[in-house]
Amino acid sequence: MNSDEILELRDRHIGGSLSVSYRRPLHIVRGERQFLFDTEGRAYLDCVNNVCHVGHCHPRVVEAAGKQMALLNTNTRYLHENIVEYAQRLSATLPGPLEVCFFVCSGSEANELALRLARTATDRRDVVVIDSAYHGNTGAMVELSPYKFDGRGGAGKPDHVHVAPAPDPYRGPFRHGDPDAGERYAEGVAAQLTAAAAAGRPAAAFLAESVPGCAGQIVPPEGYLRSAFEHTRAAGALCVADEVQVGFGRVGTHWWGFEVQRATPDIVTLGKPIGNGHPLGAVVTTRAIADAFDNGMEYFNTFGGNPVSCAIGLAVLDVIEDEGLMENARVAGERFQAGLRELAASHPIIGDVRGLGLFIGAELVRDPDTLEPATAEASAIVNAMRERGILLSTDGPFDNVIKIKPPLVFTAEDADRVVSELDSVLAGEAFAVS
Amino acid sequence: MNSDEILELRDRHIGGSLSVSYRRPLHIVRGERQFLFDTEGRAYLDCVNNVCHVGHCHPRVVEAAGKQMALLNTNTRYLHENIVEYAQRLSATLPGPLEVCFFVCSGSEANELALRLARTATDRRDVVVIDSAYHGNTGAMVELSPYKFDGRGGAGKPDHVHVAPAPDPYRGPFRHGDPDAGERYAEGVAAQLTAAAAAGRPAAAFLAESVPGCAGQIVPPEGYLRSAFEHTRAAGALCVADEVQVGFGRVGTHWWGFEVQRATPDIVTLGKPIGNGHPLGAVVTTRAIADAFDNGMEYFNTFGGNPVSCAIGLAVLDVIEDEGLMENARVAGERFQAGLRELAASHPIIGDVRGLGLFIGAELVRDPDTLEPATAEASAIVNAMRERGILLSTDGPFDNVIKIKPPLVFTAEDADRVVSELDSVLAGEAFAVS
Repeated sequence: MNSDEILELRDRHIGGSLSVSYRRPLHIVRGERQFLFDTEGRAYLDCVNNVCHVGHCHPRVVEAAGKQMALLNTNTRYLHENIVEYAQRLSATLPGPLEVCFFVCSGSEANELALRLARTATDRRDVVVIDSAYHGNTGAMVELSPYKFDGRGGAGKPDHVHVAPAPDPYRGPFRHGDPDAGERYAEGVAAQLTAAAAAGRPAAAFLAESVPGCAGQIVPPEGYLRSAFEHTRAAGALCVADEVQVGFGRVGTHWWGFEVQRATPDIVTLGKPIGNGHPLGAVVTTRAIADAFDNGMEYFNTFGGNPVSCAIGLAVLDVIEDEGLMENARVAGERFQAGLRELAASHPIIGDVRGLGLFIGAELVRDPDTLEPATAEASAIVNAMRERGILLSTDGPFDNVIKIKPPLVFTAEDADRVVSELDSVLAGEAFAVS
Repeated sequence: MNSDEILELRDRHIGGSLSVSYRRPLHIVRGERQFLFDTEGRAYLDCVNNVCHVGHCHPRVVEAAGKQMALLNTNTRYLHENIVEYAQRLSATLPGPLEVCFFVCSGSEANELALRLARTATDRRDVVVIDSAYHGNTGAMVELSPYKFDGRGGAGKPDHVHVAPAPDPYRGPFRHGDPDAGERYAEGVAAQLTAAAAAGRPAAAFLAESVPGCAGQIVPPEGYLRSAFEHTRAAGALCVADEVQVGFGRVGTHWWGFEVQRATPDIVTLGKPIGNGHPLGAVVTTRAIADAFDNGMEYFNTFGGNPVSCAIGLAVLDVIEDEGLMENARVAGERFQAGLRELAASHPIIGDVRGLGLFIGAELVRDPDTLEPATAEASAIVNAMRERGILLSTDGPFDNVIKIKPPLVFTAEDADRVVSELDSVLAGEAFAVS
């Protein structure tokens, strides 16, 4: 099938609410390491796929999957060693109290279950979230995602949801250089917790991406999450860290984003990278919360925790460890950020460069003082880079943040190439900022 | 690892709300066709796994998965032929108007999306469901599942949910032999739709398993679903058929359970058997409903519709067709039901035998007049059969229905063997009914 035929069939048989990337859509037929290949064999450097975490089609993951698929794939009501071995290995990457695992099929299912856990354990219903956050595509998750309910087609904020300001030190009220910015933003969480309780609807949880992604690849200022978690616990609510986008070593220095901020959640949710593309997700929590949830109602997930999914999850952990991918994320990420910062010096459209490891954002503005978002420019750049064989995307409330979150096998040389091509694209007339 | 070690690690690292099957748990390490094998190589005839639909570890499915996993597994924002080919093939099995597909990772995600579709398309919120129904493990699905909210640990019926009586011609108010039973039960749906509207909360949807499973493998009386759908449409609501448990040819005469009742839904949800164990689900609906949902808000599912999942989905369709599994379900299912009916003649504990194809229930009662449920006996029988190498389970509001829903490669000879072993177990003193 050629691209036109595929597009025609998509029009007929696929819902219109699923968009296609780039002005000139890509027809991708093969993936390997940090590269995707189109029908003509042209390679594209993938800077955006945080799902194929250890590299597209990693042979160890493919082999583990194929071997287990041929042997057994059944549910978790029979005993099997994969699920317990995986639970043990996964728990070992997390702080001590997080030791009880629930396996599901996606990040959305993980956040759904986290919400059920928090509500059952606290006997409360409301939730505090961060502005511009995205937590999933189910009904309840859209309701907890300002990114969705405040966006196009959104129905606005439901009463049981309380939105704290995004801890954005570039565009928010407390900025780079303010040593108290972290505390100040955490007070925004405290204010929502207090207001919710005062309104007679105390929060069950503070649900936060450890490093906010859809909000524009925001790195919260020092102390933010730790302090926000303290306020949350003081209010009798549970701390839920959504690591669906950022987890599994991507931040370079730690397995988990919350560790960078020396904060420990009560519940952590995992998705996207966990199975290198295989539909897998997990919730890890404390024994006390898991026991409170065990109130007589069975939690059964048909596919979650099956021997194939767990074999894949184990292979992903093996590869991250054996290939030193966390350290690679640190090294390649530092090089990437340094290159982007250098670019920013000559291209004032790059207003801010931020990130942790291989989770990076470059925010584009038309004016460094007003921070007027360079939204159209961001889109033009991403499309121009695609023509040069480099895949990027945009995000953030103004869609003006270039989003970088490649497979962790991405190299420092790849980073140099992206920076160099970006330099050349930005030198084009269209992107001059007055 | 031996069973004790696995159980110990489950206690430590897995939530207690996940139960293990059978008094003496099974440690299963291999699967093939309709058989599971334990660590000692003992074979168990699997009469309950409606997920590994075309047989455990079917080589064509395993091969399709492995081949595509090694080639490409990325998201649906690039063009790829697998998703459109699969959408086309899947639509072709469904009645004409059902032609737009959304791919997700599980039946729960499918029902979640169906609810979002129905609510957006109707701008209404409430839902009519059938008593004892189960629709998934997310928050909203637990709220729509009397099986859960009325069960242990349940919080009761939410205000936005309206429960119609289960169309159970054995235990319900309108029974076998009543030619109007279907209409009467459908009037129960109409009554809920009317009451909801009168209370100022008109229903967005009537959500029903085409052939109710957790309610006890109920085959609704003739005309029920068709008439219930007419009432639903007259009330301005949408008809959602949950085919997660029963779909893909299991009923023997048709691809879908609703076809048996000559009813066509507006939205159909698919899960469990769709990927033979791979985490996959789908929602198929009309162009009009899909377009109404396309209101500006993107629906993106990270894993849903990826090339691997679609390759697996396609392989499952191929196997069903090439191996004539629908017809096999009809033949083996008829033999199974005939055998059970014969047993019922000599064992009055078997109060009712019902089913369609290889979706069968045998309801056990202590008294054929009062229908007192033989719950403990059902559990004892299932455990005794497990010792004889045959896997069954129980379900229904009283947990007294022996549930039969094997992989579709199950044979008439397998059915004979189960019936014969069951005869022998029932001849034991423990199961005598006065």
